[in-house]
Amino acid sequence: MRDVAAAAGVSVATASKALNDQGRMAEETRARVQQTAKALGFRPNGLAQSLSRRRSFTVGLLTNDTYGRFTLPVMSGISDALVDNGVSVFLCNIEDDPALAQTHVDAMLEKRVDGIIASGKRIDRRLPVDLSGLGIPVIYAFSEPDPDSIGFVSDDEGGARQAVEHLIRLGRRRIAHVTGPSSFRVVHQRAAAYRDALGAAGLAGPDQGVLVGHWSEAWGHEAAGYLFDGIGSPPDAVFCGSDQIARGVVDALRERGRRVPDDVAVIGFDNWEIVAAATRPPLTTVDMNLKALGREAGLTLLQLVDRQPIEPGVRKLPCRLLVRQSCGAPPAG
Amino acid sequence: MRDVAAAAGVSVATASKALNDQGRMAEETRARVQQTAKALGFRPNGLAQSLSRRRSFTVGLLTNDTYGRFTLPVMSGISDALVDNGVSVFLCNIEDDPALAQTHVDAMLEKRVDGIIASGKRIDRRLPVDLSGLGIPVIYAFSEPDPDSIGFVSDDEGGARQAVEHLIRLGRRRIAHVTGPSSFRVVHQRAAAYRDALGAAGLAGPDQGVLVGHWSEAWGHEAAGYLFDGIGSPPDAVFCGSDQIARGVVDALRERGRRVPDDVAVIGFDNWEIVAAATRPPLTTVDMNLKALGREAGLTLLQLVDRQPIEPGVRKLPCRLLVRQSCGAPPAG
Repeated sequence: MRDVAAAAGVSVATASKALNDQGRMAEETRARVQQTAKALGFRPNGLAQSLSRRRSFTVGLLTNDTYGRFTLPVMSGISDALVDNGVSVFLCNIEDDPALAQTHVDAMLEKRVDGIIASGKRIDRRLPVDLSGLGIPVIYAFSEPDPDSIGFVSDDEGGARQAVEHLIRLGRRRIAHVTGPSSFRVVHQRAAAYRDALGAAGLAGPDQGVLVGHWSEAWGHEAAGYLFDGIGSPPDAVFCGSDQIARGVVDALRERGRRVPDDVAVIGFDNWEIVAAATRPPLTTVDMNLKALGREAGLTLLQLVDRQPIEPGVRKLPCRLLVRQSCGAPPAG
Repeated sequence: MRDVAAAAGVSVATASKALNDQGRMAEETRARVQQTAKALGFRPNGLAQSLSRRRSFTVGLLTNDTYGRFTLPVMSGISDALVDNGVSVFLCNIEDDPALAQTHVDAMLEKRVDGIIASGKRIDRRLPVDLSGLGIPVIYAFSEPDPDSIGFVSDDEGGARQAVEHLIRLGRRRIAHVTGPSSFRVVHQRAAAYRDALGAAGLAGPDQGVLVGHWSEAWGHEAAGYLFDGIGSPPDAVFCGSDQIARGVVDALRERGRRVPDDVAVIGFDNWEIVAAATRPPLTTVDMNLKALGREAGLTLLQLVDRQPIEPGVRKLPCRLLVRQSCGAPPAG
């Protein structure tokens, strides 16, 4: 579709509509696009064709993630998945305000978006707006889904397990876990996976166990004090619940004259590049693959628009470990 | 309008449309809103009324700012300004891709947005799409405006002057400037204001003058080496072109045993809170007031929608100095 659009000198959306006999445009334009498509041997796929009959080529994305660090990658993934169909993603920030949320949902419905994707800053909270019974498909991506709806979240247990197993493979034996507040479900999920991975390797972890605190650099600093200034033997690795915490731990270790990764290996979580890449040394971290999550959410929304039957439920998508330098070289082989 | 909406149990957008005899809704709903408004003594203002006749209550916001650090505050400001009119802001990220940009602009036009605000990650670059002749109002906010259009940018000279004058008032005399790449216009504007402020105070600045590099922590580190590891007498203050640079300078000073602010005062730029507040000590920094900039852009767009005559040209909005702890206490009085 992109090739056809480029060759015909029109946008992808226009090309798509021209080939589906939809939308307003000069008949000359429509004819030119159709001739170009024929000349290039373009064959629309069945999904795109069946969708085109009732599509507005826009998707609404709701979020309460003020900094956009989770939602902007999700948005980029949705765009990537749908751009060949000329679909635009409209983001509205509802800032945890129910009245604002309703205003934006009304506006999206009035603009006849093909569907709405609800996103947020944590996966265990609903947005403050009821999205059931809107008459258009709704998908939850990185936010708590309504019952009987379709949601995509990251597999936090799997991500935590990858992190701890990486440390064990590198020969670390006293692995601590410094994480965020216990009001977050992911804190429990990641801590459980951390304990399971240690147990499976016959390791007990250091005496301090799991340190629960805040999603901040300052907490990373403070926790490093608990771990390294006490009288017990200190950990040789710290698995952190966020890159910001890991940044605090790494800085605190440097100030104590402990070398990362030589003396202590550190792993973060989020792969928030602006923090992870700026840490010295750059952080090995768990990437939640939010762009891929957005892509899946976008493609699934298209299937719903096409009235394909999709099982409700929550899909957990795999995280991946992004290796930088804070754990040392991976073992040979 | 918000009170009427709440009392009538409808959204602000619905209330607004009900009172302006617009939009699709049950006649019963419209009647209820109108009775509620009468009972509450609601008087729509003239601007809102005259606008309502041709408004869709949505504004499109285009950006290429992947991290959203500049655009999300602008978006929040636009929303704030327009929420009483039930206006929604739809953000589309065009990622520097002309074809994607055209697709999104097409989609916005098709959705009949009241106007488009073009935003970006720097104020001296145009977005890769032609927004002239669209037939709807266009405003540029934190991006390079087209000739004869209306733009809002931050007053970077003014912000830099405030920063340097703050340091001078605190008694600093050897003030260095560490900033980003010379390909950015703001680098020249801020450096000129820095030199002017020093000159006006009869100060020459340290030998190294202005250090031009990158917008990164790593560059802050490197520059601190040039400033503090040489043989000349070191600066007693560093004015940095971004909070990330300032973060690098502060960390490098700590590692050299130099105290901030006692030995060296440091000022950042951006007030990117996630960096500025996490620095130890927290950064005093120049805030570009992007939320206020968004608010101005939104209100001006409303005036254009209302066909009020607005002079074209670029408006420079004032920055403000946000005092935290990296420069020490402000002088008495």
